[in-house]
Amino acid sequence: MTEKKIVPRKLQGFWELAPEKQVIFEEMLEKIKEIFKKHCFLPLDTPAMELSEILLAKSGGDIDKEIYRFVKGSTDACLRYDLTVPLARFVAMNENTLSFPFKRYQIGKVYRGERPQKGRLREFYQCDADIIGDGELSLVNDAECVKMYKDIFQNLNLAVQTEISNRKVLFGLVNGLGLGDKFSDIAICLDKLDKIGEDNVAESLTQLGLDKNQISKLIDLIKMSGNSQILQSASKLSNDEVFMQGIDELKSIDEYLKAMGLTEQDYKFNFGVIRGHNYYTGTVFEAYLANNRVAGAVGGGGRYDDLAGYFTQRKLPGVGMSIGMSRLFDIIEQSSQEKVEFCKCAVIPMGETLKECLNLVSFLQQNNICAEVYAENKSFKSKLKEANKRGVPFVAIIGENEVQSGIIAVKDMASSQQQSLTKQELLNLLR
Amino acid sequence: MTEKKIVPRKLQGFWELAPEKQVIFEEMLEKIKEIFKKHCFLPLDTPAMELSEILLAKSGGDIDKEIYRFVKGSTDACLRYDLTVPLARFVAMNENTLSFPFKRYQIGKVYRGERPQKGRLREFYQCDADIIGDGELSLVNDAECVKMYKDIFQNLNLAVQTEISNRKVLFGLVNGLGLGDKFSDIAICLDKLDKIGEDNVAESLTQLGLDKNQISKLIDLIKMSGNSQILQSASKLSNDEVFMQGIDELKSIDEYLKAMGLTEQDYKFNFGVIRGHNYYTGTVFEAYLANNRVAGAVGGGGRYDDLAGYFTQRKLPGVGMSIGMSRLFDIIEQSSQEKVEFCKCAVIPMGETLKECLNLVSFLQQNNICAEVYAENKSFKSKLKEANKRGVPFVAIIGENEVQSGIIAVKDMASSQQQSLTKQELLNLLR
Repeated sequence: MTEKKIVPRKLQGFWELAPEKQVIFEEMLEKIKEIFKKHCFLPLDTPAMELSEILLAKSGGDIDKEIYRFVKGSTDACLRYDLTVPLARFVAMNENTLSFPFKRYQIGKVYRGERPQKGRLREFYQCDADIIGDGELSLVNDAECVKMYKDIFQNLNLAVQTEISNRKVLFGLVNGLGLGDKFSDIAICLDKLDKIGEDNVAESLTQLGLDKNQISKLIDLIKMSGNSQILQSASKLSNDEVFMQGIDELKSIDEYLKAMGLTEQDYKFNFGVIRGHNYYTGTVFEAYLANNRVAGAVGGGGRYDDLAGYFTQRKLPGVGMSIGMSRLFDIIEQSSQEKVEFCKCAVIPMGETLKECLNLVSFLQQNNICAEVYAENKSFKSKLKEANKRGVPFVAIIGENEVQSGIIAVKDMASSQQQSLTKQELLNLLR
Repeated sequence: MTEKKIVPRKLQGFWELAPEKQVIFEEMLEKIKEIFKKHCFLPLDTPAMELSEILLAKSGGDIDKEIYRFVKGSTDACLRYDLTVPLARFVAMNENTLSFPFKRYQIGKVYRGERPQKGRLREFYQCDADIIGDGELSLVNDAECVKMYKDIFQNLNLAVQTEISNRKVLFGLVNGLGLGDKFSDIAICLDKLDKIGEDNVAESLTQLGLDKNQISKLIDLIKMSGNSQILQSASKLSNDEVFMQGIDELKSIDEYLKAMGLTEQDYKFNFGVIRGHNYYTGTVFEAYLANNRVAGAVGGGGRYDDLAGYFTQRKLPGVGMSIGMSRLFDIIEQSSQEKVEFCKCAVIPMGETLKECLNLVSFLQQNNICAEVYAENKSFKSKLKEANKRGVPFVAIIGENEVQSGIIAVKDMASSQQQSLTKQELLNLLR
């Protein structure tokens, strides 16, 4: 071994949890996956790297400084920065063998080489579920995305409310007002309503050249509330065809969500949901914790016209939902007060009973109990202390005298009470 | 959208399964993890990249051409090529907060930028479980690794036999023969016994300068069989202290494995298990399918004196086992003849019954059945065909006439038989 030691360091901004936290994270993953499976989504696991020409198709080959790029021999590749481009590449590559609608979920790490700062990671998990149609895709799928938020958060013991809009509504209204060419700027202004308030938004819109009537129509739209009320009264705001189509789509989604058993507690229409991404073309939504909207959105997504236009002639419309894994994990981790229980029973030998302890541990494991023997050459006292530190709820002690009788001393670590049990009684207790 | 399309391609040699295969892979992962958890191992998830000075500590900073390296601003980093260096870095970084023995498992992708060829991937999964001690570590942990092979493969419906040796045995014997300085060369020769046969090995050893008596002692050692026989008769081969220590360690492991309920079907001693890695210092083992040894090892591992000598003064001995994920997946995938069942029940509307279908699907999902509605604008016939293609075992059909009566037509796709059921009867059938 070298004399001089290298200081062990991790790359800043890269994902790494303490193992006890990782247990919580893995449980969260399992609960999310469980719902995707129940909704018949297939798992996908694409490479961490993609060819640069694929990953940079959108930007026409321009390399963003956020992207990690490797050039190695004849290989020019980048670490993926999201899971959507890999999905588009995968679907286009396999369009002749896949069954449509193709429903896939993917949970994986993505990479953005920006300067790390609080809350901004360079390596982090994304969790996406998308449904891709061949040519067309029913609005039932948009509703299914919203339903999945409810199911997933319920499975995590959290209540969620998804706020839903449709790009066509705002665009149609703006267009009907003769302001179609200013749509992007107007959308950016309106997106700030929550943050800067009505007066400031009105001021900005005035600067864009809108008159009072136009401004009040837009702000009225965004401030509307009450699901059925919205769908009824919004219709009166414009005769624009695209606008009407957007309202009709929302009406269908409303019907589907009701048929799925969702209520106003689970979703509400909110035309203030803008979503930054330009590729959304219809439904858009954001998911918020029901009792903690200020924590920010814990998910979002929407409908896009064409997933893989860079790679194939085939029109592949889709709708997708994603979950903000880091934020969700923070919420779950903060609310889990108890110690993580990764070992249900530690078995400690007293005297020469190691073999009996190994036998007991095998028996417990065989019966689905997480158990281990503390076999190291340490004092009994220090082993008990260790079990306590690790949050082990029960400790089984086998002493030399008890080997013959088959009786095990079992200590409940929470109450410190001890009882004498047979193997089978111990198993029943642990179950 | 651009007119000119980019051909969708994946990086060669990078991991990507068809979604139906990915289902099988994920099930395999779950079954492996289940056993690690039962043995109280904690999960670890380290970054895909490490600082170059960390990853290249072993080679004194020399960059191997197999390694993917990025230099970006002030960051000099490489993609990990195994999970052992990240473990060493992690343990050294957290040595004051971790509880020892520290038992962790990690399943993750690693990267080796070699030229892709059949069976050699540039991105592939590794699966490691290690137990790290503080200063010392009981041989019970070596036995636990062997036990985990049995448990994991049993959970995958496969029988495994682990072949066990101890580095000290061969080294001690060679040393006792006065050939200590030729140990590496001799080990390399002996490692070929399976492949090139006894005569050729003897020839190579002669060329190394060994006499007939020395050669026959070595070959006798390797050809020994029968667990209890080996432990008894091997003792007579040498008086070398290290040799005797190796035999004693194997005797302890033998006792522990028996106490854990393992028999000669599950493990055998075989001094022919050499293992290439120089860092193994004691127990070494390789796992083979019981009925298919020629498929090659499906796992391997062993004991090392010091995990993190490059990073810390603290002595951290460990023992680890790994599973060859690609090979294991090939075996499992080939043996799973049936279609993957990711949807238990497809619900198809006939006429205007979409809402009733959505309601039924929600009911089934709530009761833990993977179900989905076929809502696209396609013919009933093509939907039935689709269900068949996807391997869905049951199709529920709701027609307009049946909405009132609450009766659902349920088709068993295997037998083509159809029956009329209530919602609850359908659920019972699917359960």
